[in-house]
Amino acid sequence: MSEVRVLAERAREAAIALASTSSDQRDRALLIMSHALVANQDEVLAANEKDLAEARAKGTAAALLDRLELNPVRIKAISEALKSLSILPDPIGEVLTGSRLANGIWLQQIRVPMGVVAIIYEARPNVTADAAGLCVKTGNAVILRGGTLAVNSNLAITKVLSNAAVSAGLPEGSIQSIASTDREAAEELMGLHGMIDVLIPRGGAGLIRSVVENAKVPVIETGVGNCHVYVHEAADPNMAKRIVINAKVSRPGVCNAAETLLIDEAVYETVLPPILRALEEAGVTIYADDKTRALGAVMRVNPATEEDWATEYLDLKIACKVVAGLDEAIRHINTYGTKHSEAIVTEDYTAAVRFLNEVDAAAVYVNASTRFTDGGEFGLGAEIGISTQKLHARGPMGLAALTTTKFVAMGSGQIRE
Amino acid sequence: MSEVRVLAERAREAAIALASTSSDQRDRALLIMSHALVANQDEVLAANEKDLAEARAKGTAAALLDRLELNPVRIKAISEALKSLSILPDPIGEVLTGSRLANGIWLQQIRVPMGVVAIIYEARPNVTADAAGLCVKTGNAVILRGGTLAVNSNLAITKVLSNAAVSAGLPEGSIQSIASTDREAAEELMGLHGMIDVLIPRGGAGLIRSVVENAKVPVIETGVGNCHVYVHEAADPNMAKRIVINAKVSRPGVCNAAETLLIDEAVYETVLPPILRALEEAGVTIYADDKTRALGAVMRVNPATEEDWATEYLDLKIACKVVAGLDEAIRHINTYGTKHSEAIVTEDYTAAVRFLNEVDAAAVYVNASTRFTDGGEFGLGAEIGISTQKLHARGPMGLAALTTTKFVAMGSGQIRE
Repeated sequence: MSEVRVLAERAREAAIALASTSSDQRDRALLIMSHALVANQDEVLAANEKDLAEARAKGTAAALLDRLELNPVRIKAISEALKSLSILPDPIGEVLTGSRLANGIWLQQIRVPMGVVAIIYEARPNVTADAAGLCVKTGNAVILRGGTLAVNSNLAITKVLSNAAVSAGLPEGSIQSIASTDREAAEELMGLHGMIDVLIPRGGAGLIRSVVENAKVPVIETGVGNCHVYVHEAADPNMAKRIVINAKVSRPGVCNAAETLLIDEAVYETVLPPILRALEEAGVTIYADDKTRALGAVMRVNPATEEDWATEYLDLKIACKVVAGLDEAIRHINTYGTKHSEAIVTEDYTAAVRFLNEVDAAAVYVNASTRFTDGGEFGLGAEIGISTQKLHARGPMGLAALTTTKFVAMGSGQIRE
Repeated sequence: MSEVRVLAERAREAAIALASTSSDQRDRALLIMSHALVANQDEVLAANEKDLAEARAKGTAAALLDRLELNPVRIKAISEALKSLSILPDPIGEVLTGSRLANGIWLQQIRVPMGVVAIIYEARPNVTADAAGLCVKTGNAVILRGGTLAVNSNLAITKVLSNAAVSAGLPEGSIQSIASTDREAAEELMGLHGMIDVLIPRGGAGLIRSVVENAKVPVIETGVGNCHVYVHEAADPNMAKRIVINAKVSRPGVCNAAETLLIDEAVYETVLPPILRALEEAGVTIYADDKTRALGAVMRVNPATEEDWATEYLDLKIACKVVAGLDEAIRHINTYGTKHSEAIVTEDYTAAVRFLNEVDAAAVYVNASTRFTDGGEFGLGAEIGISTQKLHARGPMGLAALTTTKFVAMGSGQIRE
């Protein structure tokens, strides 16, 4: 049997046992895992050093090396995150609806673990601990498949956390990582219909697309954000500038950063130049339509192509387009956006309400930065990712996104007429 | 552009407009649709007669012809079903959570339509009207792809309902059927990632499997039910018999009918014979393990193979197996079941609770027939199908299963630090 199938069968066994664990048991396991990570950090750091050496030998870029690197401070932070999960309320067992049916059956719909959760992600070893912790919290068995660059770090973290979980009384097979780094292993995982209850890809657009194309198991798409800030003709110009700069510049590499600025034709000649200057001062390269370029407001304005409207730069770059008004703005966003986070800046009530209703996205904003789309900001406690699909979960996903429901019916001999 | 893509683009346009319709508008459209179906029944019946003639010429089985056939009584029933949807509460617009964030942003999570729903189904023309009605109720645009046998009936019903919806003020493209009956059209539909928000297959195991294998859009799997009744050693023997007979015989062709009977070794010699005799009297063929066959309780007991444990007969057939006890029963169900509906008959408290916790299924029963898994029985008002997956919806799906959520954030200039 292949490695992936062996892991999946173990995970299914574990999932059955996990379904009967109590919150107390799982929270205790999280505390022991948190402690074990620090206690065994030499082992983890040695494995990470091996990954780093191999990555350096391959000439990996400095930014990626930084994401790959662990050190005692980072391990402490990961350990603290596990501990903080233990104090969140447990979603499992919540009774969502319940009633006594006319025939006397006592029917309840209760929240239960998904079962087996698979996560495919890129080279950040902290995701390994993070995902394992979220799955332990919600009573799910997890199969992790991290990036090749971090494979030694991931296996070392998995070993420490899995041993800790077992010592806390959770079943073997609750936390597992796939050791094999070949493409076939990932594809096999995506094809295990009936064994994997949900597969969550965490990473760039290429990874997400590959999972959507190949998976035969249920998937939650996450994280690709081609977000817009639309400056309506009735916008407060200073607020517009502040929001555009924040949405683009405060953290350009994340999915809730703005990638395109839209502005109404009625006001662009006066409102746009200060925004463009502020973007330029912040080091942002601008890709713009002809009207914007003709303004001559700043030095570096490149011509935008059709491709720019659809691009998630994840960088200090922004596309800029003058639109006729609200209708064109909504149409542009619904055409090119990725249904993540979209903002309008306006003082006009009707425009605001139409934008909220008609823009199709996980989060829609009036007079606030798109950067707020985040589990922490939204008060969800923990975040598994940001769903950009509509099935099951949409927007920042809290613990409940890792659960499903079960109808529990207690009768006294009822049969159906 | 292909027919399917043209329909999908029209549906996306319609979905945007539908998102801004009010409950009143959609309920009025349902009433007009209900009325139009009866007013235009000659047209629909003529199309149905064409389907029936072609089906008869192909030598189609009588049961299938019966499912295909429409007549004024059946059209009246379909029309009444549309009318009854109009009086159900509207799930759209429900505020699920809401708060004022610490930074002053007013955040609400509201229920909104999915957008574009696609439904692939087999030869029952009533599903066409049913699905169209459910989607109008929930503000979704729908693309229908029915079975080849019913194509003329489906197109005629779609035309009547779509015209009625448009006359009630809903956008063109709200209700559409694919005219092309080739396999490629269905496969193209399954591949329209980013254009179809959810695809629901309604039909037999083969159809569901084909959709799961081929779809690149989010899917809700429905309806395959390899359900078990487990007679525990502490069962009331008469109740056990009544529940087994009801679960198998009351409607053997539906997904919540029982397909396998499990019984504890400790009691099978006395409890099983009357059950087997009652099954035989009801015309049920039994496929059983050696222990059951050795009882010689009835005439027609065939040897069960491994395949029988995994088969959804949808017929007057049942598999029967003697198990060592609760552990083996749970393991058997979790191995061979399709996570649909599972029942234990017992007077033992601990066995009942363990069964409810450890059996992994959409609906789990103590001392009641599996036949109750149904939107109507569970009080959901309307049913789109019975989900056997864990993502998004599980078990009987009401109107809410055709919706998603949206975070709506109203600020006053907030930016993220």
